[in-house]
Amino acid sequence: MSDAPAGLTLDDAAAVLAAQPFSVLLGTRLTRFDGTGATLELDLRPEHLQQNGFGHGGILAYLADNALTFAGGTALGPAILTGGLTLDYLRPAPAGATLRADAAVVHHSRRQAVCRCDITAVLADGETATCAAAQGTIVATGGR
Amino acid sequence: MSDAPAGLTLDDAAAVLAAQPFSVLLGTRLTRFDGTGATLELDLRPEHLQQNGFGHGGILAYLADNALTFAGGTALGPAILTGGLTLDYLRPAPAGATLRADAAVVHHSRRQAVCRCDITAVLADGETATCAAAQGTIVATGGR
Amino acid sequence: MSDAPAGLTLDDAAAVLAAQPFSVLLGTRLTRFDGTGATLELDLRPEHLQQNGFGHGGILAYLADNALTFAGGTALGPAILTGGLTLDYLRPAPAGATLRADAAVVHHSRRQAVCRCDITAVLADGETATCAAAQGTIVATGGR
Amino acid sequence: MSDAPAGLTLDDAAAVLAAQPFSVLLGTRLTRFDGTGATLELDLRPEHLQQNGFGHGGILAYLADNALTFAGGTALGPAILTGGLTLDYLRPAPAGATLRADAAVVHHSRRQAVCRCDITAVLADGETATCAAAQGTIVATGGR
Repeated sequence: MSDAPAGLTLDDAAAVLAAQPFSVLLGTRLTRFDGTGATLELDLRPEHLQQNGFGHGGILAYLADNALTFAGGTALGPAILTGGLTLDYLRPAPAGATLRADAAVVHHSRRQAVCRCDITAVLADGETATCAAAQGTIVATGGR
Repeated sequence: MSDAPAGLTLDDAAAVLAAQPFSVLLGTRLTRFDGTGATLELDLRPEHLQQNGFGHGGILAYLADNALTFAGGTALGPAILTGGLTLDYLRPAPAGATLRADAAVVHHSRRQAVCRCDITAVLADGETATCAAAQGTIVATGGR
Repeated sequence: MSDAPAGLTLDDAAAVLAAQPFSVLLGTRLTRFDGTGATLELDLRPEHLQQNGFGHGGILAYLADNALTFAGGTALGPAILTGGLTLDYLRPAPAGATLRADAAVVHHSRRQAVCRCDITAVLADGETATCAAAQGTIVATGGR
Repeated sequence: MSDAPAGLTLDDAAAVLAAQPFSVLLGTRLTRFDGTGATLELDLRPEHLQQNGFGHGGILAYLADNALTFAGGTALGPAILTGGLTLDYLRPAPAGATLRADAAVVHHSRRQAVCRCDITAVLADGETATCAAAQGTIVATGGR
């Protein structure tokens, strides 16, 4: 678990997450930020659900967006923008689960990183289920 | 402004939105649901921002997910799932703006609808700026 | 039908297409390149099909890629790269149809254009059917 | 290298590829089809290039589409359709390279598989470079 190539530590990255009011509102935690990528976790609370009692798709989309961006940050540093992302939903996320978004860099240049993210629901009994798979592009803003 | 082809009214669809705790948390409003698609609006509040003071990308991803799904509902009715979506970010959404997500059906069969969504920031002075463009697939669950 | 904003004419763009050996192999024609976007057409020949006698998905993916790129060129000029694209398949393209890929710019800055493309099959009797819907990002290389 | 879960062998799958006139036109080979996914290879010939002498983006899009679909076939069997795909371009593919598209299943139910694909250029000196990364959804048609 070496530091990320861009020289940021887990603490540096956690400070960025703590500076995102929206992530504070949702209760997101950064549990990994190293040379292999980044992981965000979020406990699905009642206020995160949709009309059928599952995690709202928008919560998964938020998690994918943010985990892809933090993964991009492991390669590109903190001055980045998310260019875009694709998300395929696989399975509804049950109320009460903890969502874990694991993201990694597929390829990067100095200017851009393509990252992938899997979102897993971890249930109370420890069972896991993949709920969504994403791919996105993160762009360095420093040189623009 | 006829009713949507699937026979749902704006009030029907607004009741679905009101039954989404996550949308209630964020303050999302449904302002259009008819034969031409659906529009969601959300006032960007301080708790919706990221670390640089703009609307969090995850808010835009949530809005795209939800507006695409409601647009799919105009064609397919209420028993639907979002299969997946792609979102390209165009411009940061400034704090204080109202975000408007306009979504429409590109094509649909009885089983599936492909929809597109543009997210526009409406500023206090009435100026508008397109912040994101999305495309997604909505699947009918009834016949499965 | 004014010239494209970037100052390229239909003839300029057709010369680019003619300089693409792959497009020559496939028989692609540029039929529109103006301020509203670009259109490519291709007659589905026997060698373009898949195992069930429909146009190969890869032909539609090629057309989407190329039409999105030419649409980006209407805004950004000729020094461009395709950053990425998403394609949703709607309906198989029947053998013998002419495929028409209509692409337009959704939004562009000086550096980047987000474009959308619809692919329509035009049958011998004049009937049309939308076969695929795409969205993609085109990036200007000049300033890099 | 066990057979794919759906019970198809490499020979079965190669026969499908050989029945695709478009893949025969392009010279695509199936070099892997097993429980871990599928690999397609294609030698970039002069007629596969774009105007700057690199492999046309449409060739990479075709390869991604087809490799994702064969990967889906390892899980779902032969009666499948490609629902859609996303492709991020990473690097131009140099003339003369062999393109290798490695695809794997991320998750699947009986009805649907989400797959990912990396396209690598293998140069004459054995050097390799990742040229594109894709994600797509494959749908079983049998039960529809």
